[in-house]
Order: sequence, then C-alpha cells, then structure tokens
Amino acid sequence: MNSIKIFSPSTVANVSCGFDVLGLCLETVGDEMIIKKSEKPGLRITKIEGENLPLSIEKNVAGVAAKSYLYKYPTEIGIEIEIFKKIKAGSGIGSSAASAVGAVYGINELLERTIKRIDLIPYALEGEKLASGQAHADNIAPAMLGGFTLVRDLNSFDIIKLPYPLDLVVTIIHPKIEIKTAHARTILKKQVPLKNVIKQTANIAGLISGLYLEDYDLISRCLNDEIIEKERSLLIPGYNSLKNSALESGALGCGISGSGPSVFAISRGQTKAKEVAYGFKSIVSKLGIDYDIYISKINLNGVKKMINVI
Amino acid sequence: MNSIKIFSPSTVANVSCGFDVLGLCLETVGDEMIIKKSEKPGLRITKIEGENLPLSIEKNVAGVAAKSYLYKYPTEIGIEIEIFKKIKAGSGIGSSAASAVGAVYGINELLERTIKRIDLIPYALEGEKLASGQAHADNIAPAMLGGFTLVRDLNSFDIIKLPYPLDLVVTIIHPKIEIKTAHARTILKKQVPLKNVIKQTANIAGLISGLYLEDYDLISRCLNDEIIEKERSLLIPGYNSLKNSALESGALGCGISGSGPSVFAISRGQTKAKEVAYGFKSIVSKLGIDYDIYISKINLNGVKKMINVI
Repeated sequence: MNSIKIFSPSTVANVSCGFDVLGLCLETVGDEMIIKKSEKPGLRITKIEGENLPLSIEKNVAGVAAKSYLYKYPTEIGIEIEIFKKIKAGSGIGSSAASAVGAVYGINELLERTIKRIDLIPYALEGEKLASGQAHADNIAPAMLGGFTLVRDLNSFDIIKLPYPLDLVVTIIHPKIEIKTAHARTILKKQVPLKNVIKQTANIAGLISGLYLEDYDLISRCLNDEIIEKERSLLIPGYNSLKNSALESGALGCGISGSGPSVFAISRGQTKAKEVAYGFKSIVSKLGIDYDIYISKINLNGVKKMINVI
Repeated sequence: MNSIKIFSPSTVANVSCGFDVLGLCLETVGDEMIIKKSEKPGLRITKIEGENLPLSIEKNVAGVAAKSYLYKYPTEIGIEIEIFKKIKAGSGIGSSAASAVGAVYGINELLERTIKRIDLIPYALEGEKLASGQAHADNIAPAMLGGFTLVRDLNSFDIIKLPYPLDLVVTIIHPKIEIKTAHARTILKKQVPLKNVIKQTANIAGLISGLYLEDYDLISRCLNDEIIEKERSLLIPGYNSLKNSALESGALGCGISGSGPSVFAISRGQTKAKEVAYGFKSIVSKLGIDYDIYISKINLNGVKKMINVI
C-alpha cells in the first residue's frame, strides 16, 4: 500500500449539557485526505484544497499532529499529505479536529501499524492545541472513536464511548459568519454560579441515564446548557429563533455546536430532522446570511479508510 | 388497621460528584415511627425518644411534612405520631429527611391510600425546608424511593432511580461533632471555577455510566468532588486521614456525607467495607472524638412498614 484515502468526520462538541466533555460524530460531512509514501524522506503537506491553510508543517493542524505522532513512532519512509477540506474552518463542527485526527489515523493506517485508535488521541490533540490554544478532546474523541463520547479525564485519556438510540438524527446549520474558537473561549466567564452548576450536573447525569435507557423524553429534558449558551448565543444571529423553531418542529434538543456559529438539533428520525432543517433554512435565509446545512445520523465508527484505497 | 410502625432510613446525599442531585439509601440505621388513628381529630406528635426535638407540629420536621400532606389530602380521622429517632440530628445522614419521609409515608399507609411514593415527595420536602432553610431532595428522594437516586429537576419532581451493582457496601462514620446543614451551606462559595465545573460534570457523567455498566474501576475514578469538599472538609477533624485510609483499604471512593460531619466510603463487598470501618474507628478514636459507625448495603426499597404492624 503506497497511498491511502481517508474520510475524517465532522463532530459536535459539548452537546448542550456536556461543556468540554461530551461530543458526537457526524457522517454526512468530513474532510478527505490522501496520504502517500514517498521516496523522499520526511513529512510534507503537498496540497490543500477547499480552504486557504498553510502548507507549513509547523503551522498546519494536520502537520503538527502528524509530526507529533512520527516523533513517537518514527519511520524511514517519506510521507506526503494531501488535504481536501470539506469542513469549513471556524464553523464549529470540529474542522481542526478532523484535520488532526485524519492525519494521525491516516499515517498509522498507511504504515500498517496496530496502534489502537484510543492511543492515537494524544498526537491528534497536539494539532488541536495549535488551533484553539489549549488541549481539549471533545471533538478529537468522537472524530477518532466515532459515536457519542465522554472525555472523563484528559490527562489520563479516560474516554468512554456512550450508547445512544440508533434513530437519533442531527440537523446542523452553519451560518457563514466566523467565530474563532479561541475568541469564543475568552468570552466565557471563569466562574459559574453554584445553582447553574447543580442544574448542569443534574442534566448531564440525566442525559447519560437517558442514553443508556433509550428514554427519549429524558434525553430531551436534559439537553440544556447552563454554562455557556447565554454568552455564546449572543454571537449567533437569530439563535433564539433557531432554537425555538427546532423545538417546535419536535427536536429533542437544540444548542450551539462547539463554540459556534453552527447550531445543532437532535431529533428522533429523519422526518423530524428534515422539518428542523426546513425551519433553520427559513430563519437564516431571512437574515440574509449564507449557510450550509447538514442532516446526519450519528457516525458510529469515526475516521475511516474510504472504499477507494489507491 | 389502627396503628402502623414504620422504618425510615438514613441516606447519603451528594455522593461526591453529585452535589445536591445524587443520594443513596442505607439499611442499617433509620428512625422508627408509630402512627396511630385517634378518636380526637387533628394531628399530634405524642412522643419523641432519642433526640430532644419539639413536639409542636409547626416546629417539627415530621409535623410540618405531615401537615402539608394532610392539607392536600385531608381526613376526619385524628392522627398521632410517635417518633423513635435513631438517626442523630446534624449527623449528615439525612435525619430530617427520615423524619419527613416517615411521617408522610406512614400516614399515607395508615389511611390505606394509593398515592405513589414519588407523589409523596413534595410533602416530605416541606419538612426538609424547615430543617435546612431550603428545599432540596437529595436525602428525601432516596429515603422515599430507596436505591441510588438522581434529582434531575426539583421543580418538576423529575427524579430518576439509577441502577447500581448490588455488592456495593457503604461504610459510614459519624464523628460526634455537630455541623448544622444551614451553616454548612453558608460556607459554600456561590461561584465555582469553570475548570472545576468541567471536572464535576465529567465525573458525574462517568459515574452514571459506571453504574449502568457495573464498571467498578470507572465508578471509582469518578467518585471525586470538585465543588464542596475543600471547604466542608475543614469542618471535619481528620478528614484527609479518613479518606486516605479508606482508599488504602480498597474503597472505591470516600467523601463527605451530605453536609457532614459523617464521612462515607463505598466498597465492593462486606470485607473491604469492614476494613474501611476498622481504619475509620482507629483514626477518630486517636482524635479522642466519640463516634457511631455503620456498615450497610444500599437499601433498595427505602421507607417501609416494619414486619410488626400492630
């Protein structure tokens, strides 16, 4: 195998009540990467399409992640990466995580190594640090492992894959305004009122319970955020209308995807998810803002080799 | 049936990572109450043994709870309550909750009404308010329902019974110093640093997952508190030694029971729980403090009629 093509998925971090700890993986949009062996030693990014990102290893999320992996697991073989960005940078659906995860997973597969996905996370995280200024794995974990993930403790890479009802469908709208993750983090308050903490812990505990029990009503009651929504939603035009519209369409919950500006809703079944999408489009169109919209089941497996391995 | 005897159990609130939302029910210590029909109309507390508590309905937790229940569900029949307090007031294992729950459940049983346990909680809560100055159900819920409970939302009485491995055993030591719940609440900070909130939500999410999966290691990794332990443990002599001793004896976790001063540890199996108890006794004895100590499985059913119904 001299070349491999991989699909690295977009992800929704936080999922309302799980700020910095919960994330879920999507399947309808993700980056593609071709990773090739080269006779010329060393690591190079040779092509980037879809976004204006630096080719320099040190300045590119995929490059930093790949370099970190190769520092731990060196090879004599030269490696070239081509990146086809489908996830817009700054959209809030894990663009940098997809780059980092794709590079590390892809090189590991290309070299036919048997290192487990969970053990690749630390290297992907090095790339994420470049993008957001600090290590957080709430996009990295679901992109690498798939499904619905809980980052219990990042220092010990204690990450749990949660169960979920397989008919959950996510609607995502990306209003094309840019919010940098690093900026979205600076507007967060450093202190949280105790009463909000109690609500947040009650909701995440209830959500986890609802996921194990496949109790849709319980899941719905728990999909609230008491920590960041108030501040971050101010950066998203029409946020309250989008949320109200999703809930009126029967979504189980609606919130900000990661640090925004993408807004996600979780529904039971495709029909409701499409109704939510219809409402989302109508609201954002009226505001005169361009957008992308996706409807996706939760992606069970995360980053993967595409069928057409070359 | 003219008279009924009931057992109203002690409880552990908070359970480390679940401040104000988690609680579990114990079986080796609880109050007893005799509740009698009387020809003389009205509600009276006719006897209290074991604690110096007021007989006045308005000033007694059981009285306030009973009155609240009877206001909603009136009866022509006179009711007399005898209370045999076995749970020390101010011990931190739900003494006031046991009184409130016992009175409401007991009257409901005596009158042979079919109101469900969950629907009795609001009236018990009125009693708890008298004791702690505010409504919280983290002792009321497990005392009434048994098992391991999550108060997801108190306003809507959204309470979830969690599963747990049946071989969990709780060791409780009550060092006989008094901490009033109301005082223990005033020393809490009104604001929690965001990084602690993230750890707390990760831990409670992991704990719930561990309970569903019966994953003892995960349960153990999650039994930490990031919100109140630092402040409240200062009120408990030898707290750090107690905790270290429990963990060295192989307990899955150790923390403050409710607002203290009782300290609880959760172990897998009776043998470890006894080892924990041995360590606890040794430490508190050396400090010259009198204590009670209990070893108890989690009480699956909560408040109950005793076998010897009169």
